[in-house]
Amino acid sequence: MTNASITSWVERIRAGEVRAMARAISAIEDGTSESVELLKALFPFSGKAHVIGITGAPGAGKSTLVDYLAREYRKQEPPRTVGIVAVDPTSPYTGGAILGDRIRMQAHYADTGIYIRSMATRGFLGGLARTTADVTTALDASGKDLVLIETVGVGQDEVDIVRLADCTIVMLVPGMGDDVQSIKAGIMEIADIFVINKSDRDGADRVEKEIRAMQSLAARADDWTPGIVRTVASEGKGVPELAAAIAAFYAYLEQRGLRLKRKEENWRERLIEMLREALLRRVMREKLGEARIAEYAAEIAAHRRDPYTLVDDIVREFGQ
Amino acid sequence: MTNASITSWVERIRAGEVRAMARAISAIEDGTSESVELLKALFPFSGKAHVIGITGAPGAGKSTLVDYLAREYRKQEPPRTVGIVAVDPTSPYTGGAILGDRIRMQAHYADTGIYIRSMATRGFLGGLARTTADVTTALDASGKDLVLIETVGVGQDEVDIVRLADCTIVMLVPGMGDDVQSIKAGIMEIADIFVINKSDRDGADRVEKEIRAMQSLAARADDWTPGIVRTVASEGKGVPELAAAIAAFYAYLEQRGLRLKRKEENWRERLIEMLREALLRRVMREKLGEARIAEYAAEIAAHRRDPYTLVDDIVREFGQ
Repeated sequence: MTNASITSWVERIRAGEVRAMARAISAIEDGTSESVELLKALFPFSGKAHVIGITGAPGAGKSTLVDYLAREYRKQEPPRTVGIVAVDPTSPYTGGAILGDRIRMQAHYADTGIYIRSMATRGFLGGLARTTADVTTALDASGKDLVLIETVGVGQDEVDIVRLADCTIVMLVPGMGDDVQSIKAGIMEIADIFVINKSDRDGADRVEKEIRAMQSLAARADDWTPGIVRTVASEGKGVPELAAAIAAFYAYLEQRGLRLKRKEENWRERLIEMLREALLRRVMREKLGEARIAEYAAEIAAHRRDPYTLVDDIVREFGQ
Repeated sequence: MTNASITSWVERIRAGEVRAMARAISAIEDGTSESVELLKALFPFSGKAHVIGITGAPGAGKSTLVDYLAREYRKQEPPRTVGIVAVDPTSPYTGGAILGDRIRMQAHYADTGIYIRSMATRGFLGGLARTTADVTTALDASGKDLVLIETVGVGQDEVDIVRLADCTIVMLVPGMGDDVQSIKAGIMEIADIFVINKSDRDGADRVEKEIRAMQSLAARADDWTPGIVRTVASEGKGVPELAAAIAAFYAYLEQRGLRLKRKEENWRERLIEMLREALLRRVMREKLGEARIAEYAAEIAAHRRDPYTLVDDIVREFGQ
């Protein structure tokens, strides 16, 4: 692809052309070499959007809350534009998120200020967190004021994904029992704001008490005490309060000069992830290919070859 | 480390010395260069163990079931030796699994035929699936007849981990509602055997019906119809039946010549994962280091440097 066509692609993305953005995201998902050229050209325009990550157990009501939150931002004066990336790492084989995507897109069809994309599968060379990060860069560079990243959250993948955000929201629901316990383990520690959704149910007080108890145990390095917002997402209740809590957190980050620090920390991890993938992609393209990998796998499975020596040899041969 | 000391380390591992194994696992977790030498030397002795993966939602009773299953194998004639790897990717920051490990190890203290190790954190250079795979190789090479890998399962990490196994068991529990739905999405497709634990609870019939309904929709490439075993793990009920179901699955694999085929498929993925990590480790060691990464991250966060060009340059400089 020529520099000129990359430039015109970037221009169309920045002008808000939905098809140009859709093509960019597909290229990013496929990890094509032109997507890398595109991202190099988009990067200088990125860095302005507020990136907000929202995670929680399946069934917590994330999609509904994200939809209402996007509408809330559209209603502000002046209206703010929103990109939504819905990531579902729980369906690596099915393309589960896609249907929901279609349905949700229809609801926002008339509003060009909102762009929704969902991602579920990850490719042969992996990296859903990398893809999400690059898509976020593209949406950011396109001029969206906010990027909302929504993910089903329990495992490491989800932690990697929400760590991209400036502000991480963890959703809990009364009466989920064991799951609240399990989410606590990994995700609770990265929450900047807690949302108790379906807060008209019994048990909302207990969930809040549990969060407070946990907060009293673990002080954060940045001294921020995560706010707790109660919502009933299905009715849009508590959504303006959530937007206010997000704004308060951004004000805090700016005031303490922490926003840049957080970005630095995120980039440390993200850079390593990018390197990991770029190195593998290059070796696969130049030295191996899937057919050779399959041959090696057969030899290893038959114990005719030791994989540790093989990997050592490949790395040595490739690296200077 | 000299070849001679690697050889004696391997000998002590194969003689069942618990300390030699513990040191091997720590080296594997840290990804030291001596762990790679050790794994090269251990690999020829591996490949005999039956590797069984067990996953399910938090609170499904995996640890209890795994403990009973290990005891069941110890009671067989002749008694079979068991390695247990408990992986908890939900606690990436805390070392949540460790306490449970200690408690469980005490219960088996007197029995040298069982070795338990739990893993929770993943290091700077990542790769809990890689670590689990290498630890499995070490336990296999040490002469354990079975290696049971237990993991909390919803995300991609868990899928990667259980895919190492010859035989994958998915545990469900009646009355988990939404979670069964969510687990269905990614994990159900990789189950060779289903366990309905806490099957004395209401709703076990409904869970079984749901599994059957799902099976009627999706035929497997290998024609195997996953068995369904009901257990009450806390009382050891159904555990002999589970051991029998596992044996039946192995018999099926052998009879159809599928065991090697599965191993090949697993090695395809694992080899790529190993390469990904080895390449990154080499570049980090020879070209970058954490301090340099931190500098780059600061420049990128401040938008003084474009990460996509940087990664391209590093890869180009490193690769021949």
